[in-house]
Amino acid sequence: MSSSMGKIVKITLFGESHGPAVGCVIDGLVPNIKLDLEHIEKRLSQRRPGQSHLVTSRKELDRFEILSGTYDGRTTGAPLTVIFPNTDKKSEDYDVAKKVFRPGHADYTGFVKSQGANDPRGGGHFSARLTAPLVFAGALAEQLLLSRGIKIAGHIASIGMAKSLSLSDFSGYNEELMALDDTKYNIFESHQKQLLEEVERAKDTDDSVGAVVEIAVFGLPVGLGSPFFDTVESQLSYGVFSIPAVKGVSFGDGFDFAKKKGSEVVDAFVLDHQGNVKTNANHNGGINGGITNGMPLLMKCVFKPTASIGRAQETLDFDAGELTHLEIKGRHDPCVALRAVPIVKAVTAFTLLDMIMMQYGVAYNES
Amino acid sequence: MSSSMGKIVKITLFGESHGPAVGCVIDGLVPNIKLDLEHIEKRLSQRRPGQSHLVTSRKELDRFEILSGTYDGRTTGAPLTVIFPNTDKKSEDYDVAKKVFRPGHADYTGFVKSQGANDPRGGGHFSARLTAPLVFAGALAEQLLLSRGIKIAGHIASIGMAKSLSLSDFSGYNEELMALDDTKYNIFESHQKQLLEEVERAKDTDDSVGAVVEIAVFGLPVGLGSPFFDTVESQLSYGVFSIPAVKGVSFGDGFDFAKKKGSEVVDAFVLDHQGNVKTNANHNGGINGGITNGMPLLMKCVFKPTASIGRAQETLDFDAGELTHLEIKGRHDPCVALRAVPIVKAVTAFTLLDMIMMQYGVAYNES
Amino acid sequence: MSSSMGKIVKITLFGESHGPAVGCVIDGLVPNIKLDLEHIEKRLSQRRPGQSHLVTSRKELDRFEILSGTYDGRTTGAPLTVIFPNTDKKSEDYDVAKKVFRPGHADYTGFVKSQGANDPRGGGHFSARLTAPLVFAGALAEQLLLSRGIKIAGHIASIGMAKSLSLSDFSGYNEELMALDDTKYNIFESHQKQLLEEVERAKDTDDSVGAVVEIAVFGLPVGLGSPFFDTVESQLSYGVFSIPAVKGVSFGDGFDFAKKKGSEVVDAFVLDHQGNVKTNANHNGGINGGITNGMPLLMKCVFKPTASIGRAQETLDFDAGELTHLEIKGRHDPCVALRAVPIVKAVTAFTLLDMIMMQYGVAYNES
Amino acid sequence: MSSSMGKIVKITLFGESHGPAVGCVIDGLVPNIKLDLEHIEKRLSQRRPGQSHLVTSRKELDRFEILSGTYDGRTTGAPLTVIFPNTDKKSEDYDVAKKVFRPGHADYTGFVKSQGANDPRGGGHFSARLTAPLVFAGALAEQLLLSRGIKIAGHIASIGMAKSLSLSDFSGYNEELMALDDTKYNIFESHQKQLLEEVERAKDTDDSVGAVVEIAVFGLPVGLGSPFFDTVESQLSYGVFSIPAVKGVSFGDGFDFAKKKGSEVVDAFVLDHQGNVKTNANHNGGINGGITNGMPLLMKCVFKPTASIGRAQETLDFDAGELTHLEIKGRHDPCVALRAVPIVKAVTAFTLLDMIMMQYGVAYNES
Repeated sequence: MSSSMGKIVKITLFGESHGPAVGCVIDGLVPNIKLDLEHIEKRLSQRRPGQSHLVTSRKELDRFEILSGTYDGRTTGAPLTVIFPNTDKKSEDYDVAKKVFRPGHADYTGFVKSQGANDPRGGGHFSARLTAPLVFAGALAEQLLLSRGIKIAGHIASIGMAKSLSLSDFSGYNEELMALDDTKYNIFESHQKQLLEEVERAKDTDDSVGAVVEIAVFGLPVGLGSPFFDTVESQLSYGVFSIPAVKGVSFGDGFDFAKKKGSEVVDAFVLDHQGNVKTNANHNGGINGGITNGMPLLMKCVFKPTASIGRAQETLDFDAGELTHLEIKGRHDPCVALRAVPIVKAVTAFTLLDMIMMQYGVAYNES
Repeated sequence: MSSSMGKIVKITLFGESHGPAVGCVIDGLVPNIKLDLEHIEKRLSQRRPGQSHLVTSRKELDRFEILSGTYDGRTTGAPLTVIFPNTDKKSEDYDVAKKVFRPGHADYTGFVKSQGANDPRGGGHFSARLTAPLVFAGALAEQLLLSRGIKIAGHIASIGMAKSLSLSDFSGYNEELMALDDTKYNIFESHQKQLLEEVERAKDTDDSVGAVVEIAVFGLPVGLGSPFFDTVESQLSYGVFSIPAVKGVSFGDGFDFAKKKGSEVVDAFVLDHQGNVKTNANHNGGINGGITNGMPLLMKCVFKPTASIGRAQETLDFDAGELTHLEIKGRHDPCVALRAVPIVKAVTAFTLLDMIMMQYGVAYNES
Repeated sequence: MSSSMGKIVKITLFGESHGPAVGCVIDGLVPNIKLDLEHIEKRLSQRRPGQSHLVTSRKELDRFEILSGTYDGRTTGAPLTVIFPNTDKKSEDYDVAKKVFRPGHADYTGFVKSQGANDPRGGGHFSARLTAPLVFAGALAEQLLLSRGIKIAGHIASIGMAKSLSLSDFSGYNEELMALDDTKYNIFESHQKQLLEEVERAKDTDDSVGAVVEIAVFGLPVGLGSPFFDTVESQLSYGVFSIPAVKGVSFGDGFDFAKKKGSEVVDAFVLDHQGNVKTNANHNGGINGGITNGMPLLMKCVFKPTASIGRAQETLDFDAGELTHLEIKGRHDPCVALRAVPIVKAVTAFTLLDMIMMQYGVAYNES
Repeated sequence: MSSSMGKIVKITLFGESHGPAVGCVIDGLVPNIKLDLEHIEKRLSQRRPGQSHLVTSRKELDRFEILSGTYDGRTTGAPLTVIFPNTDKKSEDYDVAKKVFRPGHADYTGFVKSQGANDPRGGGHFSARLTAPLVFAGALAEQLLLSRGIKIAGHIASIGMAKSLSLSDFSGYNEELMALDDTKYNIFESHQKQLLEEVERAKDTDDSVGAVVEIAVFGLPVGLGSPFFDTVESQLSYGVFSIPAVKGVSFGDGFDFAKKKGSEVVDAFVLDHQGNVKTNANHNGGINGGITNGMPLLMKCVFKPTASIGRAQETLDFDAGELTHLEIKGRHDPCVALRAVPIVKAVTAFTLLDMIMMQYGVAYNES
């Protein structure tokens, strides 16, 4: 396995869904940061299961314990370790998975990779529960970015056939985006009804549905990233593709570029009122040649429909060597995107913090 | 900058468009490999400019010189260095870029990042010419994968409004894919006319057009990759997003997942005639939980329309501090995808080789 | 901070002397290893304080808890996390250190590095207690090396003026070395009295004394390591110099080479009875050009006398800005080497395991 | 192989003694540095062979060509590639080594590692000629450190039985050290005669002799380094042990600590006249707990006597499978240390620059 990400600020994720705890070690933090526990709790609560009938009913309180790296509530610069003890474990729900590989899940690939020695309970190390410590680390990174004037907005841009607004229409982090951050599912109030109806419909038919999450980052410095091989796109996609169920990542106009003419997507350089270089459009999503250009960074990622659905599916009984009908009784989300925005934000924040530390060092905020 | 990629097999890219040479160092190669120079030349020729009226007329012969790491035509295990001396440099074409930042290019971001010290001639280190040594390294990686039974197919899946076949319809590397590999532009013969018409149309209007490149990898072992953070998707997208003009990367059904129901995209596990585990569909593109499942790996990436177009564009004259009309006289591709397939293949091959060496070591081919 | 070591098999250390726990995450382990808990306990007991009047009386039972990465007593391949909860914390002993920097310790440098935010209790993250999880990881690595026929011997070669045997006199891991491994302090029985007398003498005068630890590794494959920059010496010294109090590392004849003639230190190649290439002497400590040559690997490292001594020392009261007399009441070892051999073995085993995995992959044991 | 060193500023070495060229890629340099070519040439000349009867007569002019990464004589921030074409290659001298492994050299280990595919001419990639690009990179790093007020002194502390001064007697970089930097062999004028007599004696008897090189670094910030695992000692020794013939590295009192009492080696903290924290002695060589304490950093490394000596040596004829007499006719140094000081300085400078960039970022010089 390779469970670490980052060059200067590094995170190492560990744990299994039904083991004693999941957690992470965050290394390379600057000392003397007072942890914003309120912000961390807010992000954790946005990811937390069990909060409505539209998300999995597994009830984890996501209580965490900091084992190292802080003193008097401040970082010391030594590795910060946080664990989330596992409390609500219903292993019996998953017993069937030991012999019958669930389609679309990592049961089979995890089994082969570990030569049969993997922890099969609840997906083991492959569980989405691992995203809890990831969100902790990301919330901390977000706090550090904020102190440098960098703000991250995120929302569900579409679910099934229902589309919401586009973050490309926002030139700055305004009150509407602040309000968005306080919504239950990170959906713009104006579009919540339509989007959730898609989830309800999937749930009512024992089905699930895909979605797109969109991120905008405001306030990044110009010049972040490298052409080969550490482009902004390379580094962000590296992290985002670790999030379970993500199958596509794009920047700016993304896959819409495929059908466009060059003359339709020109981001011409102009000067704004303060004399700063801007572009008069943002098809490139704030990135030229792999490097930030000062415009809002725009990223989209697609979440596939949850592979676990209530309906019976035909699949392989590996022991018996024959097909079988599998009915997954576990508690599942009909649309994982409802809890995914804080996770995408976390990966985005952590990656950008690491890139900034790599390129500018600790003194960035003062320059 | 961070100009290296890979953990066990590493590549470091260097050079500028109009400097003495571009090249790379490939480190971590196993010794005693006889270089398949014919294959390397084939891949280089597929990337080479100047071959038809549809691609840039810059004429580089792409002659390379190996400076280190081989003896008697075989790798020694020491770092292999290859350089491509620059011959056809027309700096005057690019003079205008020193003061006027071309929209959609890295002129502005490169200028800021380097504090004004960048080599502005032909994009300097940001030039697509850097992909020549990348293709060399990828061709070598492809040769090594082939000796392990792993084959990579790649083609242009769409240009503008014209669509070609889908590689998801191929269950193995067959004669049709072999023929594809010998086409001039890596387009299926059956669809070449439609796709190239899109390019002609763009060229005739001094414009450019976007495209999608699709890759399929056959013969990968089951179990390659990790859940956090080295998923197959993470590592491949990291490399592919370094290719100039790529703005989106997806796997399997990719962004089409957004509108789909879970019941529509089930890859049920079955046994094939030899008793091997397969899935009866491949919506997940050969990857479950970030790990290969033995089905063909399917990846798409989108290339934005070339930013340099023949038409005059309005942009900023940075010295004068005012808007100006920019006419780019350089020799440009109306559709970069026509030369991009060998580059995407190269990044794919190199990344997969590194992952295989990382996970299985040198003895993989014997196991 | 950078609290990780290793490329394929990685360890990340965390924790503070008086925080909730110290521990580590070990990533990159192959799956399906049954942990040899008896061996791990043996190594931990050799490092443990509080076992005789010659070592610090801090009584840690070194009870550990495995939080992740195992299932049914076997590794799963997912990150293995182990913590050692801190139990016997007497913070008051160390209170003085908050204002008065102890000479030879990291109080001052840790204070500056963390901008005053470090945990001052018991040295915080700088505590030698961090070596407990390191020994755990090393014992596990040693178990894996053993399954590949690689054995590590280690002992105290000298304390003060008293010298013991040299491991260069052993051509294989024999019964004498097995007996050595069961001694209380890793000192050859024949020399224990003289060496411990040096410690007694230091202790009786409220002083401390330096020592040399010597390591021999038998059974390494020929060809491990690289000339630039991953020589065997580079990688081992990198790890060994992380052990608190180590101030010098050498291989083979080490610093004795300084006074020698080339003709005196020739390791001529010969064939042994089985037709294997050997050298008729081992001045180079089993390494030529940074690469193992099949002879026993010989390494020495020097431990400085414990900086904390019972005597009053003059040092700086940082708050008052003037000199003061410091009497350190904490429980200290008069000779840290008495508990250091398992730590040096741990770093050696872990580093070699990582090098072997890097170079040969998981299949090494079968080749 | 692993031919790279560094985290932020990285060097990748390549080339073979008798191939087209040796060279390196330096990545991660800040842009806009005007190369101090005079300083680079000075360091290269101190390493260059062929300058007196006491060093090998191989005559390399060490002419270099910069292939990438500079524009108008300044760094651009893109990877800087420099090559040293090989000119004076006398392969015939080394022909014997193809079959007969020279004792103390990497002929055998390199042969096994490369499965017989290595370039045997002049040691191939194992040649000390690879240190030419290393010295180039180090000289550039030294220039950057100098601009931050950090100065590196280095000299030969002893050859055989003859000892020179100790750098621990210097509290700052004074005129005597400046004069030292201009001597032919980096030996204090006062001791040159005695030390060179040891070399003459070895040469006259067709023998070679060992030596110790000592380094002092003045002006380092307090707080550089980490406790686990990136101690200053770990990182410097990692680099220094890559230098051919180095078999031991130590800091401060080094192996002399072994015989000392704690009370004899106290570095008590005091305030100097400017109110800065200093220690009243420097037994720890400027490092406490793996972190710089503001005192001069003191490092020693031992060079074994050149393995190639004029005398006939008995060794193995691998093809014949029997012992043979080997007479090495190549041009060799009776004492490699005579050309080694610039190499040790180079590794020291490069490693410290990388550590500073890692910890403080580009803005360090302004803070």
